[in-house]
Amino acid sequence: MTNVRLEQQLAFILEVDKLKTILRRSRILDQSRYENDAEHTWHLMLMALMLKEHANVQSLDMMRVLKMLVIHDIVEIDAGDTFAYDEKGHEDKFEREEAAAKRIFGLLPEDQEAECYALWREFEDRETPESKYAAAIDRLQPMLLNYHTGGLSWQENGVTSDKVLKRNRTIEEGSEALWEYAKNLVRQAVDNGYLPN
Amino acid sequence: MTNVRLEQQLAFILEVDKLKTILRRSRILDQSRYENDAEHTWHLMLMALMLKEHANVQSLDMMRVLKMLVIHDIVEIDAGDTFAYDEKGHEDKFEREEAAAKRIFGLLPEDQEAECYALWREFEDRETPESKYAAAIDRLQPMLLNYHTGGLSWQENGVTSDKVLKRNRTIEEGSEALWEYAKNLVRQAVDNGYLPN
Repeated sequence: MTNVRLEQQLAFILEVDKLKTILRRSRILDQSRYENDAEHTWHLMLMALMLKEHANVQSLDMMRVLKMLVIHDIVEIDAGDTFAYDEKGHEDKFEREEAAAKRIFGLLPEDQEAECYALWREFEDRETPESKYAAAIDRLQPMLLNYHTGGLSWQENGVTSDKVLKRNRTIEEGSEALWEYAKNLVRQAVDNGYLPN
Repeated sequence: MTNVRLEQQLAFILEVDKLKTILRRSRILDQSRYENDAEHTWHLMLMALMLKEHANVQSLDMMRVLKMLVIHDIVEIDAGDTFAYDEKGHEDKFEREEAAAKRIFGLLPEDQEAECYALWREFEDRETPESKYAAAIDRLQPMLLNYHTGGLSWQENGVTSDKVLKRNRTIEEGSEALWEYAKNLVRQAVDNGYLPN
């Protein structure tokens, strides 16, 4: 007997191995190379669990936070990583990612495809407490990597402290405590010469 | 006001970035390089969610499965990856990993240190339905990578089909359906010449 659902699930699981080859602009902390989306996602899931006491809403459905995070970057397998500060890249980001979601989640059995698509849209729309918290973690993590590599990716891409603060202030919607921390990190980055004012 | 708990949590989060540099024996599917523990962990967490209908026990606490998985390889930052088929390496694995757990989880606030340590021990002891299922996923994933790279890592390390079946039969404790699939994969690997009999 062949198990059709299992075959579909494994086709998806094998396809998304490609997430390990999608590079971001941040370097890992030892500065040896750029971070990829798969290891970035692991880091976010760990952070989401460890920092949940700092979320604005204490009754978060953490299972939904983790489910959103585990799939949130999969569309980048087709659409590529759009750098946070790339305004041009953001113009057609939605169309590129929408097509990717259809193709890649479409490998799954229908019920799971629908669930993944809904989780991805929820993450992108940032309207629920869970997606606001997940997005806050997704913004904070590269700031940490950047700060602790002496601002390497900020400098390489000519990003200023104003842009960092403007781009990442949505952290506040998920966690005021983490936003306080992030603002302080930007201030220290400027003081240390990691980030132009 | 400094937030002592947040500082401790972030010290841990920054320390475990090193998981991205711990290499395994399996290659990622495009065969360009070895897989690292962080991206491997992301892959397991996704698989655990997508394949949970195949678990022997249907009422699993999936949050605990994910929490176990997210931290299960962190001890390898100090202890290194012990190859599944390295019998010598397994002799002192426990002591090396125990010391690593104490140091790395010890960066966290006490309550979180205790939780992580307990989750890690639960995963290692493989006595609960949740840890049996998590371990099944952890065994199946490298088999998939190996099979779909033509048995590259099996061949490099002189592993035979008997050893693969013996080493991975614990998959059955977590999921009979996935063990059926895995046994069939080994058979096909032998037929295809990926794996010596």
